[in-house]
Amino acid sequence: MPRLPASYAVWMGHIPTPAEAQAKYAVDEVRHVDELAAVLAELAAPCLHLTPLLFPNPCHACSGLPMPPVMFEGIENFTLETQALYPVLSECRVFKSPLELRIMRYACRAASEAHVEVMRAVQPGVWEFQGESLYLHTLYSRGGCRGAHYTPIFASGPNAAILHYGHAGAPNSRQMRAGELLLVDAGAEYYRYAADITCTFPTTGSFTPDQALVYNAVLAANRGVIAAMKPGVRWPDMQLLAERTILSALLAGGLLRGEVEAMVEARLGAVFMPHGLGHFLGLDTHDVGGYLPGHPERPAAAGLARLRTARVLEEGMVITVEPGCYFSRALLEPAFGDEQLGRFLVEERVRQFMDFGGVRIEDDVVVTADGAESMCDVPRSIEEVEAVMAGAPWPPPA
Amino acid sequence: MPRLPASYAVWMGHIPTPAEAQAKYAVDEVRHVDELAAVLAELAAPCLHLTPLLFPNPCHACSGLPMPPVMFEGIENFTLETQALYPVLSECRVFKSPLELRIMRYACRAASEAHVEVMRAVQPGVWEFQGESLYLHTLYSRGGCRGAHYTPIFASGPNAAILHYGHAGAPNSRQMRAGELLLVDAGAEYYRYAADITCTFPTTGSFTPDQALVYNAVLAANRGVIAAMKPGVRWPDMQLLAERTILSALLAGGLLRGEVEAMVEARLGAVFMPHGLGHFLGLDTHDVGGYLPGHPERPAAAGLARLRTARVLEEGMVITVEPGCYFSRALLEPAFGDEQLGRFLVEERVRQFMDFGGVRIEDDVVVTADGAESMCDVPRSIEEVEAVMAGAPWPPPA
Ligand SMILES: [Mn+2]
Ligand SMILES: [Mn+2]
Repeated sequence: MPRLPASYAVWMGHIPTPAEAQAKYAVDEVRHVDELAAVLAELAAPCLHLTPLLFPNPCHACSGLPMPPVMFEGIENFTLETQALYPVLSECRVFKSPLELRIMRYACRAASEAHVEVMRAVQPGVWEFQGESLYLHTLYSRGGCRGAHYTPIFASGPNAAILHYGHAGAPNSRQMRAGELLLVDAGAEYYRYAADITCTFPTTGSFTPDQALVYNAVLAANRGVIAAMKPGVRWPDMQLLAERTILSALLAGGLLRGEVEAMVEARLGAVFMPHGLGHFLGLDTHDVGGYLPGHPERPAAAGLARLRTARVLEEGMVITVEPGCYFSRALLEPAFGDEQLGRFLVEERVRQFMDFGGVRIEDDVVVTADGAESMCDVPRSIEEVEAVMAGAPWPPPA
Repeated sequence: MPRLPASYAVWMGHIPTPAEAQAKYAVDEVRHVDELAAVLAELAAPCLHLTPLLFPNPCHACSGLPMPPVMFEGIENFTLETQALYPVLSECRVFKSPLELRIMRYACRAASEAHVEVMRAVQPGVWEFQGESLYLHTLYSRGGCRGAHYTPIFASGPNAAILHYGHAGAPNSRQMRAGELLLVDAGAEYYRYAADITCTFPTTGSFTPDQALVYNAVLAANRGVIAAMKPGVRWPDMQLLAERTILSALLAGGLLRGEVEAMVEARLGAVFMPHGLGHFLGLDTHDVGGYLPGHPERPAAAGLARLRTARVLEEGMVITVEPGCYFSRALLEPAFGDEQLGRFLVEERVRQFMDFGGVRIEDDVVVTADGAESMCDVPRSIEEVEAVMAGAPWPPPA
């Protein structure tokens, strides 16, 4: 820990002693940074293992961004070993301990309650940012979470097709209208652990037939994947399962023609769901460990290449399950004219959905010994969503 | 502007064209960054003026921190002039245009409304972070401000003596008790411009005699300074005026003994108010231009050395007026034993205030042609604060 001058207390409050810090963080030993070189020299170890992963970090292994080196005075006197620790610590973070799961369940509960509160308050005329504001207020004042771990996405109508809507350049600034869906992708941060939940629901409180068609397609994918998850299952297979489920529903709804397996083969799934099915969740929203040595490499196929991991599921992993179905001009217009993709599209019917936006349904799921369990608790079926929006209690009375 | 790939639209939404960006930001010309070198080369100017100040920045001139250089491909082909622009642009930012003032008045109004909402909701048993959450929610959902420009300080009881309370290491995590003051230092960000307002009030809704003593001391300083401000006035003189006002009140209240001028001379003011009286406000909370060439240098005396500017006031400047009076163990314990300072302190009486915390009252003030005007609109007198906390409307009916 840094050695702070006494005057620091005037500005920042009580300066903890090393003993206080040691008790608080339950670690073996705490020293001031200016002692580090001397203390480490005494140990006379052949080398010093260092990794930037010791500090909170975005998902550098997945993003390929460089990580800043660890520094302290006197570090040049040590033999540094900077490669060994990264994969080991990443692997540790892939598997959550019971205590970690307890924190993550709490974060999911706090986020779930905030989602329900938003569902109750939304109606045509409300601005997207007012939904975001109510979400954050509920999360903080009731759940004690000062942050949401990432910028909440409150995407109404066509905006729901913009995957990272809500950023500073598109800051949830649209007024909701009747007849639209609102896609809310909003998480929580509690003791640095993340929740990451998406709900999609109609601004008016009841689904139109077209909204129900797309919503149920995505819900079936979400529920189907969670039901199929267990140790030994390959994650890319879950993405393909989600695609098949959604494409089958669009076929039944008259938006597509042809054979579902041929669509999957042609990667039509990536036109409607251009992102990965889900990612590890933990200290980072997009947590580390997705592509470590000794595990499957990133797939090359469209859509699958977006996956943040291609691993085989194991007990204790926490991963999001977030299938989606979007109507994105930037993807559909080229697809209409594409030889491989265009033949599956019933263009006239699909064009009716061009301002539809999209649906995403995201759960935070822990892999158990023989299956998987969602840690989220939000209305999911159309009946549940419509009931809560009409004022019914959640969770429903036993 | 960066040249983004078409696929960016899938993730981030519509990619503006240069013409759209030009219209939105009302600038003369917009080019893609990759054209910058070619376009600038055509101009064949003897040198290229650059300053990191062109980008939003913390107050580097005041903090002494290094500023990152501007970079683009081909920059090495130009003669760079990096010194000239900084003081010129800083000086431009010191004086606010009518349009800038309109935005800042709006930010102050939004922040003021959020402060009033908090005043109404606070009572013993409420947690500091719940006050912060309500503040941010009001600011965003009603005022449209996504951020508060800095981390809100919700400091109850003794915490009010910690000047930068509320930071990640002390995150507004205490439960308020009866008989305490709550110090709320919370701002607003609107189109990047800052508001920065502090209110202090009793958790129970009515001031005790000791609370009234300190509160009225600080309020008299705040009002006295604003009344004395006008073009030609030296800012350090305003700090001394605030100190005199507060020390006189503490003397009258029996906490001090001796002559006020002798106390000021001995820098006793800095024991009770260890920060500067106020700072420029604008695109940064602590705005630039405080110590530019050709203007007074930073004073050396205790307390005054904390001032972020020592300039002479001019019309169009926006500066905070935030006198405070705190009972900080880290400052008072040494002062009791100090030869110069101890003789003024009625130790037994001052020790009764050791858990008192403190009071700060902060307005955002624009210097006019012949005076100064606060842009804030919050209850300030004890009568006003108590009335609003009891449910009276604000602003009061005409
Ligand atoms: Mn996610
Ligand atoms: Mn301030």
